[in-house]
Amino acid sequence: MRAVVLEDQLQFRQDWPLPQLMPGEAVIAPSLVGVCKTDLELVKGYMGFRGVLGHEFVGTVVECEDPSWIGKRVVGEINCSPADLPVSDPRHQDGRSVLGILGRDGVMAERFLLPITNLLPVPEGTPDHIAVFTEPLAAAYEIEEQMGQLPDRALVLGDGKLGALCALALADRGCAVTLLGKHPQKLAKIPHSVQTVALDQADSLPNDFPLVVEATGSPSGLPEAIRRVRPKGTIILKTTVAAPHNLDLSPIVINEIALLGSRCGRFAPALEALATGRIDPSFLIQETLPLERACEAFALAETPGAGKILLQI
Amino acid sequence: MRAVVLEDQLQFRQDWPLPQLMPGEAVIAPSLVGVCKTDLELVKGYMGFRGVLGHEFVGTVVECEDPSWIGKRVVGEINCSPADLPVSDPRHQDGRSVLGILGRDGVMAERFLLPITNLLPVPEGTPDHIAVFTEPLAAAYEIEEQMGQLPDRALVLGDGKLGALCALALADRGCAVTLLGKHPQKLAKIPHSVQTVALDQADSLPNDFPLVVEATGSPSGLPEAIRRVRPKGTIILKTTVAAPHNLDLSPIVINEIALLGSRCGRFAPALEALATGRIDPSFLIQETLPLERACEAFALAETPGAGKILLQI
Repeated sequence: MRAVVLEDQLQFRQDWPLPQLMPGEAVIAPSLVGVCKTDLELVKGYMGFRGVLGHEFVGTVVECEDPSWIGKRVVGEINCSPADLPVSDPRHQDGRSVLGILGRDGVMAERFLLPITNLLPVPEGTPDHIAVFTEPLAAAYEIEEQMGQLPDRALVLGDGKLGALCALALADRGCAVTLLGKHPQKLAKIPHSVQTVALDQADSLPNDFPLVVEATGSPSGLPEAIRRVRPKGTIILKTTVAAPHNLDLSPIVINEIALLGSRCGRFAPALEALATGRIDPSFLIQETLPLERACEAFALAETPGAGKILLQI
Repeated sequence: MRAVVLEDQLQFRQDWPLPQLMPGEAVIAPSLVGVCKTDLELVKGYMGFRGVLGHEFVGTVVECEDPSWIGKRVVGEINCSPADLPVSDPRHQDGRSVLGILGRDGVMAERFLLPITNLLPVPEGTPDHIAVFTEPLAAAYEIEEQMGQLPDRALVLGDGKLGALCALALADRGCAVTLLGKHPQKLAKIPHSVQTVALDQADSLPNDFPLVVEATGSPSGLPEAIRRVRPKGTIILKTTVAAPHNLDLSPIVINEIALLGSRCGRFAPALEALATGRIDPSFLIQETLPLERACEAFALAETPGAGKILLQI
C-alpha cells in the first residue's frame, strides 16, 4: 500500500505491507490526516521512531471483529494500552504504544490499526477537515481536565496552531481569553471569542492573570508567563523546546505558582465542540496535499509560521 | 532598646527606639528567635529591606488593647494585611507587610509589633527552643495545604533544615518518606520516621515517586527532582536560587508533571505537631547565642552545612 515511512529518512513508499487485523483492534482507512509538529520532530530523531508516521486522522473502519464498527467514520485516541494490560487512561502507562510515535505504525498510509476502545464515531454532519482537528484540540481541553475548575480570565502566549486551539477551548468554557502573539496576520484570523494582542502592545497587558498558557514554542515564553501570572496562579506549559531554558525560577517559589506540564487530552470534549460547531478551526488550514506529496507537505510544515498542513489519502 | 538592625550593614544597636502600640496590634517581648536563610539574603540586599531583622520567634505579649493576650506566650504568622484591608490569608496580598522582611520591623529586638490576628498561644509544656520552629515547620506543612491529599510515598531532596522539616512533616501525615542528602553526619541525625539515602547511593532510588520535594538550595536539585518523579507526579519547589537554572523542562510537559512553588504555610498544624511532641526538631539546633552576638550568629549561619542558630533576647 501507499505509506509515508520514516526509516533513515522520510520517504513516500508504494510497497508498504498492509497491516493485519489484531484481536481487539480495527483496520482503519484514513481519508484525511494532519501533519503535526511532533511528526517533524520524529523525522529529526525524536523518540528514535521508525515506521509509518502520523497520528492526526479521520477515517473509516474497514475491518473489525465487532461488525457494528464497520463503515463507521471515526477519530481515535493515540495512546494504546498493551494488549494484556488494558486501562481506562493509557496516556502515561508503562509499555503503552502511541500511534505513529512509539511502537505502533501511524496513520499516513492507506490502512492502519487502532484498538477499538480508542475509537470515537464522528457525527455525520461534521466534515473531515473539521474532525481531523480532534487530536490537537483535545490537547487544548486537557487544560480543563488538569485544572478541574477554570478561572474567569486567561492569557494564552503564542499565536501558532496550539496557542489558537487552547485559546478557543478556554473561551468555549466561558473564560475571558487574551491571546498574545507576534504575527499580525495570524492574530487577524483568530475568532472573536478571543481577544488578541500583538507583541508590540504587550506593555498594556496586566500582570495578574490567574491562568497563563505557554504555547509559544520558544524559550522566551516561560519567563513571559512567569511575568504575567498572579501569585498563586497557574501556568500551563505546552511548549517543549529542545534548548534548555535559562531561567530564574525563584518567582515561582516566592509567588507559589503552579506550573503544570500539559500534553494529550481526552477526545470526547474536543469532538463535541467541533461537531456542534462551537469551535471551527478551519481558519488554521494552510494547504491540503495528496499523500504522495508528503515530503513537500513536511517541508511546508517546517516553514516558520506555517498553518496546518493536511494530507488527503 | 537592643536590636539587630540592617541599614547599610548588619549592626547590633543599643539605642533603637521602642515600638509604639498600634490599634489591632500587640507589643511582644521575644525570648528566643531564629536566624533564617532569608535573613542572610536580606543582609545581601534581597528585597531592599532596612530595619530590624528576624521573623522566627517565640515571645510574650506585653502590651495589647485586648487584655486577655497580656502575658501570653505566643508565636505569630509573619504576613500582615494592611490595616484597612484585613483578609483571612494575607500571604500573597498586595500591600501586605511581612515581619522583618517587607515594610515592618522584625523580631531581633527587645520588643516588636504584630497584629493580634496573627498570634497563636503556645501551650505551656512546649519549650521555647521547640516553639521557635513553628514558622519554618509551617513552610513544610504548606505542602499538604497545596496538594490537598498527600500520596503514600515521597522523596525529599536536601538534608538541610528545610529538607529535614519537610520530610518530618510528610512522615507525620503518614507518607513513607525518603530523604536524599549529601552530608552523612546530617543524615545520621534525622529521626527514624524518615528513611535517609546518601547521595552516593542515589542510584538505588526508584524513578517513580508520586511526590518529590526539592529543598536542596542548589541548582542541581530540580533536574534530579524531574528524574525521580513519576509521570503525572508532583514536584514541590522550595529552593530559590539566585543563579538561573540551566534546565530542560520538556520532561515536565511530556510526563505532565505539576511543579508547585511553595513558601509560607499556616502555623496551626506546625504548632500542633510541635506541642504534641510528634515532631521534635531540636536535633537541628547548632548553637544559641545572646542577641548581642548577632553578627557572629549570622556568620555561623552562613557556614555551609550550618544547623539552626538561635538568639536569646
